[in-house]
Amino acid sequence: MGRTSDARERLVESGTELMHERGYTAVGVSELCEAAEVKKGSFYYFFPSKVDLALAVIDRHSTASKQALDQLASGDGPPLERLAAYTEGLRELHVEVYESCGQVLGCPIGNLGLEMSTQEPALRERLRQVFDHYVASLETVLDEAVDRGDLAPLDAHQTACSILALAEGSVMLAKMKNDPEVLGSLKRDVFRLIGADAPIVA
Amino acid sequence: MGRTSDARERLVESGTELMHERGYTAVGVSELCEAAEVKKGSFYYFFPSKVDLALAVIDRHSTASKQALDQLASGDGPPLERLAAYTEGLRELHVEVYESCGQVLGCPIGNLGLEMSTQEPALRERLRQVFDHYVASLETVLDEAVDRGDLAPLDAHQTACSILALAEGSVMLAKMKNDPEVLGSLKRDVFRLIGADAPIVA
Repeated sequence: MGRTSDARERLVESGTELMHERGYTAVGVSELCEAAEVKKGSFYYFFPSKVDLALAVIDRHSTASKQALDQLASGDGPPLERLAAYTEGLRELHVEVYESCGQVLGCPIGNLGLEMSTQEPALRERLRQVFDHYVASLETVLDEAVDRGDLAPLDAHQTACSILALAEGSVMLAKMKNDPEVLGSLKRDVFRLIGADAPIVA
Repeated sequence: MGRTSDARERLVESGTELMHERGYTAVGVSELCEAAEVKKGSFYYFFPSKVDLALAVIDRHSTASKQALDQLASGDGPPLERLAAYTEGLRELHVEVYESCGQVLGCPIGNLGLEMSTQEPALRERLRQVFDHYVASLETVLDEAVDRGDLAPLDAHQTACSILALAEGSVMLAKMKNDPEVLGSLKRDVFRLIGADAPIVA
């Protein structure tokens, strides 16, 4: 039994891992407590329900993706190079997960979104907020590329949504094939969608 | 209690409906039996496990999509018009579901694929076969368009996979926003991916 003071953190960590592997419904509170080495009473002290733990898990994923989204939206380098690097980073992320556990686990936000959108309005709303942040970051980089004349004028918001859809669908196929190299064509496809040549990223 | 003779069919029907609404894990055998008005003993007479019922549900979805895929791959009309009509048909399908139950339920194959790919190899394999059929149909229509000179030469298999990814990701976003009109831009995006103008379909 670990220290009580970090019990909440351990529960969020266990929830992040187990729900990424197996989804929301398949993971029970008892199992979460066991993995976190926390008593059931403590679980309900920190989280009134499993939904509340899932909200904390989603927040954790959102925090983890913040750095990559900040670099995409306003980091160093020309905008289309940042977009290209972002798509390559997505592929690398799923390759890393695959190499560490032998499985493509998919996007934790997309996984929960498909499983829970019709079940739990609170989860749907929080997941949508995370996707809204992705879309806003993509929109910013597209706007900058248009402003610089690197890209022909386009509906940046709509195109950002399409890029997110393509990325999430590609991750789905990678998960279903258990092959992260499905994402090897994502950069090319994203640049086809925006009608530009993909820059070579070092 | 309905007639025993159609008990299997009623179980598949209940499974199709309930799993589309709420996924695989969240729907129990007792609930499936109740919805189908079938005794639990009968369930296990027809299906050794819930996985076996899910396989029958997937087969049913596959059969239901056969007509649209046949029309896409080798139906009447020029290939790019068939492709455009297929993307519009997808949008219409999700609008119909939304109008009948107030929710975008998503693609039953993609839903099960994300939820169950890391859990049940038998389900993953059958779901992949269904997606392989989608990809083969898309590949056929792209090859025909290239042969006719309607489309510049491309890697038809790879592009078909990208179209499927875009469609599945768009359906995911439609489900998370509970708005089938997210699919209103799918046709335009698919034609951007293949580098052609989208034909107007009557």
